[in-house]
Amino acid sequence: MKYIAIMGFGVVGSGVAEVLAMNEDKIAKHVGDKVKVKYILDLRDFPGSPFESLVTHDADEVFNDPEVKVMVETIGGARIAYEYTKRALSLGKSVVTSNKELVATHGPELMELARKNNCIYLYEAAVGGGIPIIRPLHRCLAANRVVRIAGIVNGTTNYILTNMRDNGVSYEEALKQAQANGYAEANPTADVEGIDAQRKLSILSSIALDGTYVAPAEINTVGISALSLDDIEFAGKIGCKVKLLAVFNNGDEGSSCYVAPHFVRSSSVLYPVEDVFNAIVVEGNALGEAMFYGQGAGKLPTASAVVGDILEAVMPVEAGAYAHNWSVPSNEGRVTLPYEKAASKIVVRAPLAAADDVKAAFASYETEVALDDGEFALFVRGIVNGDIETKVSGIQGAKWMHMYE
Amino acid sequence: MKYIAIMGFGVVGSGVAEVLAMNEDKIAKHVGDKVKVKYILDLRDFPGSPFESLVTHDADEVFNDPEVKVMVETIGGARIAYEYTKRALSLGKSVVTSNKELVATHGPELMELARKNNCIYLYEAAVGGGIPIIRPLHRCLAANRVVRIAGIVNGTTNYILTNMRDNGVSYEEALKQAQANGYAEANPTADVEGIDAQRKLSILSSIALDGTYVAPAEINTVGISALSLDDIEFAGKIGCKVKLLAVFNNGDEGSSCYVAPHFVRSSSVLYPVEDVFNAIVVEGNALGEAMFYGQGAGKLPTASAVVGDILEAVMPVEAGAYAHNWSVPSNEGRVTLPYEKAASKIVVRAPLAAADDVKAAFASYETEVALDDGEFALFVRGIVNGDIETKVSGIQGAKWMHMYE
Repeated sequence: MKYIAIMGFGVVGSGVAEVLAMNEDKIAKHVGDKVKVKYILDLRDFPGSPFESLVTHDADEVFNDPEVKVMVETIGGARIAYEYTKRALSLGKSVVTSNKELVATHGPELMELARKNNCIYLYEAAVGGGIPIIRPLHRCLAANRVVRIAGIVNGTTNYILTNMRDNGVSYEEALKQAQANGYAEANPTADVEGIDAQRKLSILSSIALDGTYVAPAEINTVGISALSLDDIEFAGKIGCKVKLLAVFNNGDEGSSCYVAPHFVRSSSVLYPVEDVFNAIVVEGNALGEAMFYGQGAGKLPTASAVVGDILEAVMPVEAGAYAHNWSVPSNEGRVTLPYEKAASKIVVRAPLAAADDVKAAFASYETEVALDDGEFALFVRGIVNGDIETKVSGIQGAKWMHMYE
Repeated sequence: MKYIAIMGFGVVGSGVAEVLAMNEDKIAKHVGDKVKVKYILDLRDFPGSPFESLVTHDADEVFNDPEVKVMVETIGGARIAYEYTKRALSLGKSVVTSNKELVATHGPELMELARKNNCIYLYEAAVGGGIPIIRPLHRCLAANRVVRIAGIVNGTTNYILTNMRDNGVSYEEALKQAQANGYAEANPTADVEGIDAQRKLSILSSIALDGTYVAPAEINTVGISALSLDDIEFAGKIGCKVKLLAVFNNGDEGSSCYVAPHFVRSSSVLYPVEDVFNAIVVEGNALGEAMFYGQGAGKLPTASAVVGDILEAVMPVEAGAYAHNWSVPSNEGRVTLPYEKAASKIVVRAPLAAADDVKAAFASYETEVALDDGEFALFVRGIVNGDIETKVSGIQGAKWMHMYE
């Protein structure tokens, strides 16, 4: 029998207990042994829950039980979750989590703690919910230099953007409907301002750089709250949809990453990704382009990924064999290029009267006319981010946004 | 230093050597040690190749070298590859392969041999080329009962079908062009008759059933050689494309699998998958639906997956920790339902004059009119395969095909 404990019995934590129960036989066959939840550590009681008898408020009881070799951290946030994760790893208990904030904020320290104590820290569920992406990126693509990642990694914002486009509603109205349908929280800031996507990109970029930690703070981030219905409708006129993308690039000049709304062209595999679905495109220098698609959130999909990690954590693996190993660069400076120094593809739009000004301003770049009917728009490739505002602000009535193709 | 040997220096084998050289630093960082090709075992010489000095024709030299802990089998086929794989595993040397025929034919025996000798047998590249699918299915989805797999797993046939549709050419002409462009072999039988897809489905189904081996012989298989341009054009009229799909279903009544051309509806995530690209949809009972998409073949993409496995095989893992473990059921009978007993969704088409006959024949099923203009077509859901021919053959001029939505 393999015993585990669940810390934090909210949506994902209770989903973990449910998945373990629902697929008990299949899991026992896979592991070669039964996997049993011995404790559920939470401040609350859960009267009437089928797991009620497992609930304890006594953290010491759980941490001091030598039978518990794996602990699930589904508390969320970076306070108690951080303390409990450190305590578990220090005791040599492996920790499995869906907590993107904690991994993105304290990943290097926690992974090192795991290594020192011959246990592991796994976080497949922290990005893409149930979609396998962490292990494929870390393990299957290990032979590749990852040259690009572009992902729709936040279901809430994709749901809002899909609703604005399909039903012609404003951002404010779409957000309200998302809240009413349970797809956005009462305080939606982390989702709509791109902070959730920023954390996930920190994780993906750190793996893509084979463990060189990219802190969230160095990721230039713009959310969707400033988007208007006009932006969405304009996208349709140039054969695009607006999507919030988390982007990592790794070229000869260095790596860069940012989160921002993009016009995504219809030829892209990300174009058809709607509603709460997530999709992540990864390009490796040997692999070429691969895409991972599915439900990026939700109780059972996310729990599915957590339990997948549990089944790895209970295996008798020589410590450190597959350990994730993130290190902060010794100069403590940033890892990726400053946003202003990286190059982008953008769309510039302006009133028809300013068409010649737009053409003149971007004459030295690779461009393509996107629209010349009612207003004027240009696809511009290879422009350094720091130059964009200067160029655009000189043109009467002009606006711009990132583009993905 | 970790030493490996490559057996068979064809397209994939030479790609493996190239990827190891191209990404040497990244790989050394990931493994924490250098990975070096010590021998290339092949009957041929490769004068002028940068790897010429590693080539040997002496199998004994390679097998007897205790420094070689991992061997790459990129020979292909199930004869010499089978002998060499058995020999390596018997000596406790892990084997990594892209050989779908060998895995599908002798998987259970080879995996058992690996287990007995404390080494591993890995085959990520055998399905989907560079696309991570074997490890995600085996590991990330371990907590799920896999209820469905539907995949475009053969790039050659998808290229031919895409060409027929886009350019209105016949099957014969599209095949010739695929051969001219290097996407189909001189003898295209394994691809166009679905045998390659059948082998890949054998592998996917065996993993989905957590190691209960589904032999290729029990997979009912129809290829694309009997398709006409009229079939392809008809698909467009009902909002579909024709795709060769490998399908696994696992319901309460048992599991079933088959390979056949399908009308794929435009609402499906498989609809936009064109040319030589592969895509595999996996549905888990906790995860829901996820899709894996990318280049299903090609030298470097396939080598990328092989090298990913090499990096796992050189790690100091306790034997058997993540071993694949396929077993032949003790009754030695078939694992999945006979094809005739499984249920399908189909499209039935007939001349307009037979519309009433079609409706009457399928009145007891869930149906939906697909076309009633020029000819008549019906989507029919939940029909047992064994009943289809009987029903259709009674209607003047009627034809049918599987449908995916």
